[in-house]
Amino acid sequence: MEIKQYIEKNKDRFFEELFEVLRIPSVSSDPEHKKDMRRCAKKLAELVKAAGADKVEICETAGNPVVYAEKKVDPKLPTVLVYGHYDVQPAEPLELWKTDPYEPVIKDGAIWGRGANDDKGQSFMHIKAFEYLVKEGKLRHNIKFLLEGEEEIGSPSLGPWIKANKRKLACDTILISDTTQKAEDVPSICTGMRGMTYMEVTVRGPKMDVHSGHYGGAIYNPIQALCDMISSLIDKDGHVTVKGFYDDVEELSRKDRKMLGRVPFSEEEFKAGVGINGVKGEKGYTTSERTSIRPCLDVNGIWGGHYTQGSKTIIASEAHAKISMRLVPYQDSEKITKLFAKHFKAITPKGVTSEVKFCHGGECFVTPLGSKEYAAAAKAMKEVYGMDPMPYRGGGSITVIATAQKVLKATPTLLGFGLERDLIHSPNESYLLKQFYRGIETIVGFYKYY
Amino acid sequence: MEIKQYIEKNKDRFFEELFEVLRIPSVSSDPEHKKDMRRCAKKLAELVKAAGADKVEICETAGNPVVYAEKKVDPKLPTVLVYGHYDVQPAEPLELWKTDPYEPVIKDGAIWGRGANDDKGQSFMHIKAFEYLVKEGKLRHNIKFLLEGEEEIGSPSLGPWIKANKRKLACDTILISDTTQKAEDVPSICTGMRGMTYMEVTVRGPKMDVHSGHYGGAIYNPIQALCDMISSLIDKDGHVTVKGFYDDVEELSRKDRKMLGRVPFSEEEFKAGVGINGVKGEKGYTTSERTSIRPCLDVNGIWGGHYTQGSKTIIASEAHAKISMRLVPYQDSEKITKLFAKHFKAITPKGVTSEVKFCHGGECFVTPLGSKEYAAAAKAMKEVYGMDPMPYRGGGSITVIATAQKVLKATPTLLGFGLERDLIHSPNESYLLKQFYRGIETIVGFYKYY
Repeated sequence: MEIKQYIEKNKDRFFEELFEVLRIPSVSSDPEHKKDMRRCAKKLAELVKAAGADKVEICETAGNPVVYAEKKVDPKLPTVLVYGHYDVQPAEPLELWKTDPYEPVIKDGAIWGRGANDDKGQSFMHIKAFEYLVKEGKLRHNIKFLLEGEEEIGSPSLGPWIKANKRKLACDTILISDTTQKAEDVPSICTGMRGMTYMEVTVRGPKMDVHSGHYGGAIYNPIQALCDMISSLIDKDGHVTVKGFYDDVEELSRKDRKMLGRVPFSEEEFKAGVGINGVKGEKGYTTSERTSIRPCLDVNGIWGGHYTQGSKTIIASEAHAKISMRLVPYQDSEKITKLFAKHFKAITPKGVTSEVKFCHGGECFVTPLGSKEYAAAAKAMKEVYGMDPMPYRGGGSITVIATAQKVLKATPTLLGFGLERDLIHSPNESYLLKQFYRGIETIVGFYKYY
Repeated sequence: MEIKQYIEKNKDRFFEELFEVLRIPSVSSDPEHKKDMRRCAKKLAELVKAAGADKVEICETAGNPVVYAEKKVDPKLPTVLVYGHYDVQPAEPLELWKTDPYEPVIKDGAIWGRGANDDKGQSFMHIKAFEYLVKEGKLRHNIKFLLEGEEEIGSPSLGPWIKANKRKLACDTILISDTTQKAEDVPSICTGMRGMTYMEVTVRGPKMDVHSGHYGGAIYNPIQALCDMISSLIDKDGHVTVKGFYDDVEELSRKDRKMLGRVPFSEEEFKAGVGINGVKGEKGYTTSERTSIRPCLDVNGIWGGHYTQGSKTIIASEAHAKISMRLVPYQDSEKITKLFAKHFKAITPKGVTSEVKFCHGGECFVTPLGSKEYAAAAKAMKEVYGMDPMPYRGGGSITVIATAQKVLKATPTLLGFGLERDLIHSPNESYLLKQFYRGIETIVGFYKYY
């Protein structure tokens, strides 16, 4: 049976299985969901087992467990390590969801719910492609699965676990579906992603909240100080002002920029998509470049003083922000973290003090376009989409890929089927059925040509 | 019996009564405490009645009720309207309190609890001074009480209520204890306070929270925009940059500045008191002046994006701040509100939009030093403290005083006994017993000399 037919015949069961996974609120950033993490890992282990794995393990790490599975066919055949993650972003703000984030539904040709795409939906395609190959007796590779539960918090436990399980994970390529395509009918393959460092900063002023009438005008309000400091982190040309920030940034050649610029992009659609009246970023680069080959700094959250209902006339004792930076080759996450901490201290004005707490981080990665993995992925994609895929660099971060690439000495292959419209990390996350089916077909194709 | 003896004899009962009032969490800014507001008003009405008022009413307003009471002695005698407020600031952050904010205790010579000073403790002194005069047959004035429940949210309902009850409230002076003295043994009388306007601002970027990897570097992060805007509101010389902000500010003469500068002030103590390593404010003015005769702008709260536990890699759709300005003669609160809203719109950068919501506001006031009310207050204070009090301008705001002064054409007399160390509006609010007793004695003295 061809894969298209197999999907058609089994899709109702596929949805039933996937929905069971989507119903589990496996939010890794919230300790209250510890039990859900384990429940989700168990569910996935069952699914990979049922799909045909010989050996399935729920492996303990310093944090949430890793689901490991394998099916060995012949040691002489290439080994593919499938990576995915079963943790999701928080669903908040809940009031903006049109459907329950943890009660998936199929509507308007898409699956709706938290994790429908990122990354439960995309990981699930691999389990189904594997199931097909096993059931139809077409498996010609050794397959390993590594499904982690901490990707959304920067995979703090997976790096060490990979290092400790180097032999178990030995492989020729790491196959991942956790990225997007540039447009619905324009196949594209992600050949690199940004690294990251995430920090929490605190600015302290008076030792307690004080009356804004008695002190207002005479002391440095910590919220004002934090705003002044944050405002100074990006200059008028959109450059990050952290000293040394650009020192190691790879400057791409005109040729490379042109090649990556082939991916279709409409600034009008980009603006309309998020509802903004203008773009903003580093001078001298396009919007596509600003979100892929260039590093950036963003405040992910800010809080201080009285921020609940009503008014309170205080000058707060403390103000806080979560600040992250996206990094590109050859910036080193640890080095940038240190530079940021040093810079933040240096710009702390008199009258307040500051503290920088590192949360998590990791390196960027790029994959070579000349590899046989890229060739197999491109061939499979062309077969499904009817045209050659375009390579592009992604703006997001899967920092553990750099670690895996380094430790396992295997090429990462990123076959992502998400679209911008899927709104991963936002309310109303969805995943187009069309992309879900194409994804399974392309993965099967990859195994055919690899 | 002299007032000193009367206090000594009755103080245990005084504390019992006051503590019953302090135990009620009458937080006006939180709608959840609506019932507590009414409970507190009822309790105070009972206390004023028991102290000797002929008529006590709990009057409805558009918001929390006003406690009105009176004792008429002779229409030919002067009438004193005692103003106080029974609402308190929120006690949060609760974890910083050393004792339960709503279970008052006496410790280290002070009463500890939310409202111990502001303004339940200070209002209570008036009820006890009145009780003494009635019981001892020494009352030589017509007395009226007006105790409101919305001072901490800017008295939105009291202005209209005063206008509607002009005849009922007719008086010669409005007597208020809701301010501080400049030092424990340095008597001082507040002769003016700042006005205020309080606003909530919102900056909007993408129509939903978006992935900071996919969009980071290419759109104006609303938190960054808000920080940029806030940062620009105060220039490097400490001036508020809102266009037209200083147009109507009263420039005091050197003589007046010198006279107000007599009040003892130690910058080292000021810094140590709040634990800061430097002061900051408008160039050309002292710390005392910056918090009294000069206007200012402060962010009272800020929030946006992910500000709970863990990390979330988003660019928020919105960022918010609560911003207030303290105003001096002859700034008009309504005019400044309009100027701020216009300015905030004008500095909103492309890529985001903004909104300004007015919360509450009111005018500043000053009282003439040559009045017979000031003379009586000064005499009473000298008798208790053994030295002449010093006049000073307060930095806080009791905006309803300006309204009452205008509508009732009566001079406000501010006999405040709080100290900076009382930490009103902060955790661990307290009120020194010494000041509590001196307050009652001074109030009795005021009636003697008025």
